[in-house]
Amino acid sequence: MSKYFEDFTVGERFESGTHTVNKEEAVAFATSYDPQYFHTDPEKAAGSVFGKLAASGWFTAGISMRLKLETPLNDVSGGLIGMGVEAMRWIRAVYPGDVLRVTVTIVEKRVSQSKPNYGVVRYKVETRNQNNEVVMEMTPTVLMPLKKAA
Amino acid sequence: MSKYFEDFTVGERFESGTHTVNKEEAVAFATSYDPQYFHTDPEKAAGSVFGKLAASGWFTAGISMRLKLETPLNDVSGGLIGMGVEAMRWIRAVYPGDVLRVTVTIVEKRVSQSKPNYGVVRYKVETRNQNNEVVMEMTPTVLMPLKKAA
Repeated sequence: MSKYFEDFTVGERFESGTHTVNKEEAVAFATSYDPQYFHTDPEKAAGSVFGKLAASGWFTAGISMRLKLETPLNDVSGGLIGMGVEAMRWIRAVYPGDVLRVTVTIVEKRVSQSKPNYGVVRYKVETRNQNNEVVMEMTPTVLMPLKKAA
Repeated sequence: MSKYFEDFTVGERFESGTHTVNKEEAVAFATSYDPQYFHTDPEKAAGSVFGKLAASGWFTAGISMRLKLETPLNDVSGGLIGMGVEAMRWIRAVYPGDVLRVTVTIVEKRVSQSKPNYGVVRYKVETRNQNNEVVMEMTPTVLMPLKKAA
């Protein structure tokens, strides 16, 4: 069922399913969007600060955004319209074989001043690996339609 | 030639080449990392707030990061180690056929306190389209090795 701005509460928390990082998909992503040797070349990566092939932080962000769509945020009427992101932090390296999942926490909501039929919602995304270590966090801001305007 | 922390100056500005957004690559990206209908389905997208198929903001970020590697930031010894990103803003929608390019401006640099052989550099990335409109901006922070430690 479609969800609206009014359906979310500050402090509410959602968990995604998991995604196992595959070497081929991590390399393919980096080849297109972050072609640095420690993300694309397993042999050369051994001599990098990572010590082995590591996923691009932007790949981890992409996986995190897809996992976020496994929470009730996926049911927002009309879809999630991204305005921006604050405080994106790559805290630990992510490697092929790592099993990622995200927790989404609603941290702020207010009615939009410039778009009166919309609300502005901020939520914190924490991405964890199989050892329950936070590898990445970020706080996106999105627009959601108001139920009373629907 | 390899570049180090000492080779960059606050206020220095670099320009990338251009990238033309292709519908197939935008849809393929969104299918993997941001599967919302206005990014993946041209027909349904016509009924969305975008009015037509729009690129995912995360795709625009990925293209911007690749274009950034067409500047002297690509020559940093050992590669760019991303720490995080502040103030990412999706200002205008990006559509297939748009021609993107980025401007990188060094905004802050300091020697790392926790990693004495590295410096911390912040740079603002502005992504513009073929009409010279800013479509996205963000301020990443990266580690760069010190020349005097090399």
